[in-house]
Amino acid sequence: MANPPVDPIAAPDAAARLLAQDLMARARHASLSYLDPTTATPGISRIALGLDPQGLPLTLISALSQHAGALRAHADCAVMVGEVGDKGDPLTHPRLMIRAKAFFVAADDPVRPDLRAHWLKGHPKAALYVDFADFAFCRLIPIDALLNAGFGRAYRMAAADLLG
Amino acid sequence: MANPPVDPIAAPDAAARLLAQDLMARARHASLSYLDPTTATPGISRIALGLDPQGLPLTLISALSQHAGALRAHADCAVMVGEVGDKGDPLTHPRLMIRAKAFFVAADDPVRPDLRAHWLKGHPKAALYVDFADFAFCRLIPIDALLNAGFGRAYRMAAADLLG
Repeated sequence: MANPPVDPIAAPDAAARLLAQDLMARARHASLSYLDPTTATPGISRIALGLDPQGLPLTLISALSQHAGALRAHADCAVMVGEVGDKGDPLTHPRLMIRAKAFFVAADDPVRPDLRAHWLKGHPKAALYVDFADFAFCRLIPIDALLNAGFGRAYRMAAADLLG
Repeated sequence: MANPPVDPIAAPDAAARLLAQDLMARARHASLSYLDPTTATPGISRIALGLDPQGLPLTLISALSQHAGALRAHADCAVMVGEVGDKGDPLTHPRLMIRAKAFFVAADDPVRPDLRAHWLKGHPKAALYVDFADFAFCRLIPIDALLNAGFGRAYRMAAADLLG
């Protein structure tokens, strides 16, 4: 029995936008997909995640991590947020996949002190290493996103849908 | 203060191999990094994950998912397993990043009945959809892996290190 060739992805409504924004706001970490510059194949890492004061995703990256060099070589990446709960099929738990471009924040960028102060509110333990020379903030500016709210409930979103 | 240019990644010892194997064996889902064939940029999805009877990673994929077409177009991918606990910095929780190649299992492959029976032991709720025409098993054969057991404890692993 072949399935009918329907597009299972809907345009977002207000509830879908709120769910996506909530998943972003609650995330303290995320999965990051990037292109490995050595092998030109996909790579994956866990990253710290937060939002900047404008609500745009931000991470704090060590230059020693495998994805730091990758993002400097290829800014295109993708980020997934949304935890799996203890019960039920893991694929029924909502998650948000964001296609993004990475922009590193220079150590002397005039906006860095504000980003740093805002970051430490959500990630207080990062105070231990935020000022190490090999750590840098990196913006993950959304291009578009896919919200999967469970089987058969998927929404394609524009970057603007992610901003409250 | 610049950090010394040391390689922070060690060769695995027996404890690291056991931790990696345990993370794989306990995973019921994973993050998947792939190359989007339309945009040629990295994509990310949550997938169901299990091991086949030989201990090699396996997933069950709907043709309607965004990663199904991507893996058929580019078999190179990466998989991350390892949950984040409730306490402490999320980046101190162990996770395993596996570079892999995807191989779909045809519906009439003689090995499919065994894979199906084994899969349903670990994913009993998948009985609802495992035989739908748009679902297929897909092997994720490891190329190599990186185990991150917490800050400053990273190990580069060969595919053989992942097999018990």
